[in-house]
Amino acid sequence: MHIVPAGLQRLIDAFGALPGVGSRTAERYAQYLLKQPPKKALILAESLQDVHSSVKTCPTTFALIDASEMVSPLYSDPSRNKQLVAVVAEPFDVIALEKTGLFKGTYHVLGGLLSPIDNILPEQLTIQELVARIKTDAVNEVIIATNASVEGESTALFVSQQLSPTGVKVSRLARGIPVGVDLEYTDHVTLGRALEGRTTL
Amino acid sequence: MHIVPAGLQRLIDAFGALPGVGSRTAERYAQYLLKQPPKKALILAESLQDVHSSVKTCPTTFALIDASEMVSPLYSDPSRNKQLVAVVAEPFDVIALEKTGLFKGTYHVLGGLLSPIDNILPEQLTIQELVARIKTDAVNEVIIATNASVEGESTALFVSQQLSPTGVKVSRLARGIPVGVDLEYTDHVTLGRALEGRTTL
Repeated sequence: MHIVPAGLQRLIDAFGALPGVGSRTAERYAQYLLKQPPKKALILAESLQDVHSSVKTCPTTFALIDASEMVSPLYSDPSRNKQLVAVVAEPFDVIALEKTGLFKGTYHVLGGLLSPIDNILPEQLTIQELVARIKTDAVNEVIIATNASVEGESTALFVSQQLSPTGVKVSRLARGIPVGVDLEYTDHVTLGRALEGRTTL
Repeated sequence: MHIVPAGLQRLIDAFGALPGVGSRTAERYAQYLLKQPPKKALILAESLQDVHSSVKTCPTTFALIDASEMVSPLYSDPSRNKQLVAVVAEPFDVIALEKTGLFKGTYHVLGGLLSPIDNILPEQLTIQELVARIKTDAVNEVIIATNASVEGESTALFVSQQLSPTGVKVSRLARGIPVGVDLEYTDHVTLGRALEGRTTL
């Protein structure tokens, strides 16, 4: 015999398919929405239905843009320096960098990180499109802004090798101690990198 | 200038309205669904649209039931003892008690806990319907299974007082429930012990 009504169980199961959501959390979300006026659930339902059709990938930078836009506004904006390109793995990394307010160049989204074990090979990433952009936009510096993980490091190395024939300057984000974190709580590897990448005062 | 496409931002905002979901978590859910085939988002959207219309309240027990059902299957089931009634605050508390597998009576959902500060008064709860059930079903024991909170305790006391003219035996869950923890989040074993060790009020 079912304890939970079928319609409610379907909603719990659908929430449970989200990353990091267990059955308790899924139940909590479903219970909350059931207690609220239907409008709240409908707002979420509509935005779910629209999200895939309202968002597309920019053909130049591969960032996420509105379906109505031709190119990313972060690329078309004349105040952004097209000769400076930050290379990131995922579209959401663009948001993280934009929040710093310190980067005035343009972006290039690879669409992932190299990972032979997950069958993510160079052909699946937008590396050739990046090489083409170096010429088109007369890029003079590429900043590789990938995660400080094994995949992030090896992707950075591979992209840098692919870019070497173009002669463009390639840099990557500094590895070091996160701001606000005590030295004694920093792991050995990070501390080692911080030592290697020390800057002159 | 917007960094996140409008359709995606709407989805992030809608997820952010769920309880305990901050902007990072909302971004994570939205990003995940955007990467998956649209079908996954549509399944969640459909179950959200259907949930309010597919679920209704049982007119006898006030538990949540399918819109197609006349009465809760936990009440109509002939193997359940209608003379033993567990009184709970919320529909999801029924699920928690059912998971113990130790209770073979029926349920009565109050629809909340007394809380003058939140303007939840006795008239809003299904206390009169419970009193009526005592006669209709010739109930010989009522187990009050409310949270071990101030509101839970005072509601238990109030319900017990309202039931005293009927002469029905009134018990409540034993002190097995860790104080301050919601019934819904109590593990099966603890909840089972609390059921076995119920005390007469």
